[in-house]
Amino acid sequence: MTSSGTTSHPAGGRPEPSAAWELLVSAADAPVRGRGRALQEALRDAVRAGRLTAGTRLPSSRELAVDLGVSRGLVTEAYEQLTAEGYLRSDRGSGTWVGETARAATGRAVRGLAPRAAGAAGGTGAAGAPDGIRVPGPVGAPAVQVDFRPGTPDLALFPRAAWAAAQRSVLASLPHRALGYPDPRGLPELRSALAGMLARRRGVVADPERLVVCSGVAQASTLLGFVARARGMRTVGIEDPGSPEHGRLFASTGLDTRWLPVDEEGLLPGPLAASGVRVVVTTPSHQFPTGIAYSAGRRAALLDWARAVDGYVLEDDYDGDFRYDRAPVGALQGLDPERVVYTGSVSKSLAPGLRLGWMLVPRELVAEVVERKRTMDLGNPALDQALLTEFVTRGAYDRHLRRCRRAYQERRDALVAALTEALPGTTVSGIAAGLHIIARVEPRYGPTERFVERAASAGVAVRPLEEFGTSRPADGAVRLVLGYAHLKPSAIARGVRLLADACGRGGEG
Amino acid sequence: MTSSGTTSHPAGGRPEPSAAWELLVSAADAPVRGRGRALQEALRDAVRAGRLTAGTRLPSSRELAVDLGVSRGLVTEAYEQLTAEGYLRSDRGSGTWVGETARAATGRAVRGLAPRAAGAAGGTGAAGAPDGIRVPGPVGAPAVQVDFRPGTPDLALFPRAAWAAAQRSVLASLPHRALGYPDPRGLPELRSALAGMLARRRGVVADPERLVVCSGVAQASTLLGFVARARGMRTVGIEDPGSPEHGRLFASTGLDTRWLPVDEEGLLPGPLAASGVRVVVTTPSHQFPTGIAYSAGRRAALLDWARAVDGYVLEDDYDGDFRYDRAPVGALQGLDPERVVYTGSVSKSLAPGLRLGWMLVPRELVAEVVERKRTMDLGNPALDQALLTEFVTRGAYDRHLRRCRRAYQERRDALVAALTEALPGTTVSGIAAGLHIIARVEPRYGPTERFVERAASAGVAVRPLEEFGTSRPADGAVRLVLGYAHLKPSAIARGVRLLADACGRGGEG
Repeated sequence: MTSSGTTSHPAGGRPEPSAAWELLVSAADAPVRGRGRALQEALRDAVRAGRLTAGTRLPSSRELAVDLGVSRGLVTEAYEQLTAEGYLRSDRGSGTWVGETARAATGRAVRGLAPRAAGAAGGTGAAGAPDGIRVPGPVGAPAVQVDFRPGTPDLALFPRAAWAAAQRSVLASLPHRALGYPDPRGLPELRSALAGMLARRRGVVADPERLVVCSGVAQASTLLGFVARARGMRTVGIEDPGSPEHGRLFASTGLDTRWLPVDEEGLLPGPLAASGVRVVVTTPSHQFPTGIAYSAGRRAALLDWARAVDGYVLEDDYDGDFRYDRAPVGALQGLDPERVVYTGSVSKSLAPGLRLGWMLVPRELVAEVVERKRTMDLGNPALDQALLTEFVTRGAYDRHLRRCRRAYQERRDALVAALTEALPGTTVSGIAAGLHIIARVEPRYGPTERFVERAASAGVAVRPLEEFGTSRPADGAVRLVLGYAHLKPSAIARGVRLLADACGRGGEG
Repeated sequence: MTSSGTTSHPAGGRPEPSAAWELLVSAADAPVRGRGRALQEALRDAVRAGRLTAGTRLPSSRELAVDLGVSRGLVTEAYEQLTAEGYLRSDRGSGTWVGETARAATGRAVRGLAPRAAGAAGGTGAAGAPDGIRVPGPVGAPAVQVDFRPGTPDLALFPRAAWAAAQRSVLASLPHRALGYPDPRGLPELRSALAGMLARRRGVVADPERLVVCSGVAQASTLLGFVARARGMRTVGIEDPGSPEHGRLFASTGLDTRWLPVDEEGLLPGPLAASGVRVVVTTPSHQFPTGIAYSAGRRAALLDWARAVDGYVLEDDYDGDFRYDRAPVGALQGLDPERVVYTGSVSKSLAPGLRLGWMLVPRELVAEVVERKRTMDLGNPALDQALLTEFVTRGAYDRHLRRCRRAYQERRDALVAALTEALPGTTVSGIAAGLHIIARVEPRYGPTERFVERAASAGVAVRPLEEFGTSRPADGAVRLVLGYAHLKPSAIARGVRLLADACGRGGEG
């Protein structure tokens, strides 16, 4: 651009606030090396903030340089830069003006940010909800002393030293090309390692060719939802009680969800068959939240149904590694890998923040699932995948699971013992497994709403079973879904004591 | 379960191949500790593989224990386990049978795996295509000696030592709770660090409240596509020439794409206005692939259009950090943050395998974009985000960019010099920026198809401009999109020599 040079400022057709140039003084005060940048930023900010309005004529580069005590080249450069960017416009021979292009950012608070999205940051906890379980927020609410809400493992058990060792090893040995765009199906080495681990631990048919690395069970649900929708399905069945979060995940893929009743053996075949759905989400190894394991008969009925309707079962194996009374029951997928989409993750075994999981996909769906994964994110981060490969193949994953299993079994025992002692008549249902229990508290401590309120005012966060489905207790009992894995035995004891105190008082008052 | 105990085997109503029991012998040979597991796996495999068919009666636990020389408890446990899993069924008093539930995995090759998805693993390279640029595959095709296809930075420059230092620091200092479910918008510390970095380096309005961490430009496109679709839009405009990959990304969100012509100043306003679209994807700082920078006039016209149609501009700032002749032109988003969705990533600056990027979103779209991000993957991995935060706030990111800038500028100069010397008459267009150039090679070396074939047979991979849009050269010249950033100067010189030899011969022959 050229500047007219001789016109004194402020000049041009309209009056100009003298304050407008003061903003530039800070640029002159900047260290010599940063002055050009400071000048440009000051000008840009002034235009954006509306302090320099469209049509305002700027002083010539010579004048401004003199005023600010900087070199003319600096001013010329700033004018050229901002002209190229569209903040200023320059008319050869008549000077430099503030352009019409820039529009101030709206200063209002983020509009329409739903409580859900906002809550994710604020720690209300409902937002992250994944893997068939709602996520407890950070213990941020001032009153919460003991948080029994289910959903996370003990993050303090995360194996930092072993993880750091794997990190060092990976960064030292990874070939450069492995830092390029990943295979959307996942790192081949990780797929092999996971296939071996899952076949061994969970009895699945884990051909690496059908294994897709993903970011967790939530993404697996969304991936399958999109594929099902593209195949003409409209509704997904979910267990009742189960995880309400599925409704939001599948809605994002254009699918409705329908609650289907679960009894103490698993999904009821009659309502499933009558529903007309062709995809159903299940937790057969440890039903969430009731804690039952599907009976052999219901496992068979589920697969018969899938074959009869040409449908699919999504098997969410969210906590299948943790069983305390016997060897874990093998995954349903092992019985019919062409009808079951198996999914799991490290969210309960290592940490949800790693965002690493896996799917075993019927062969006829592999290509569609992979293409969806590709358009969603091109594949999981390569270094993270190499790290988990190292961790699994070194045996560190198995060691960590054994350590957690011991800790969680102890905590479960502590919770069951404390509950039955402190709240007489309380019964615990479901198998000895996972990271949570279902406790039935006698009706005299109820009703449920009052129980939850009393607990909260005593500093104990609990979630009633009613929040996970449509059924309401007919017997007046209070049924709670209590997570224990993230709590040390002393915290569990304290939490139950607080509960009993609050409810005992309530029961009397 | 109970076993009938006295019936000799094979028994029951149907004949039974005697070979069926041999498979169990391997279990007896297993080390004592692993025998139970080995027996269960052998039985499971036999059922799955069809070697034990539905209805086959198993020997009693006592008999099998004697036959195999293992304890009876081991066999009982195996029968119980597999009955619980549905592989066997047990009728009290009459014995144990192979159930009807298990269905063999189909053994055929992955059916319907499209070439695209297969190619992603096989290294054809087209599958990963992101960030407005197609991805070169690993140099796996036997003949390729020098690969000029654009898309990746020099992965050998990845700052492993600095990255490792950041990893150590993060793992040592991260609070446990940071390993929980992430904020779907991204780690607050990272959003602040990126906002500051982008404001400083790219002149954007980078309020952390509108910054969303994502896995890269491809995910940003998909996120915006879903949001646009939900708002009733049906078609997205893309630059012609531009990236064909956008077609597949937006198709996954239910949107069509329409090519819109670009000239040497940017998108032509007339065809844009006439198209009826309300979202357009652009690369104003360094148009991909032509290499031009949008003129100030076209920047203004683009924003005027967006305001007039109540639409949005997706600004893909895929390589905005690399400009060699002057300071980078500030991002378009700085001019109107409510009309421009800005996106970038570390794919060109650090490594695509990290899968880390960012979006700056108009305020009225923030909640919708975040909810989409949440249902897609719940948010980016927490440790990766903490790592990038550390890397940016330590100044390591700026240092790394300076180092890359020097290397890439040298490589660009080497390529331009070699081309103009070895293939006389060759001209290079576009600004001195980014990771690729457009070279126009004289018609006498053409036509394009023959040029590309000759190059390939000489071991040089090149992509013609025609692959990136609808236009075909009228002048008979060969126009190439040549990536140089990932090639050392010596490789560049060799590649051009091979090209010139091949084409010189071709020109004569």
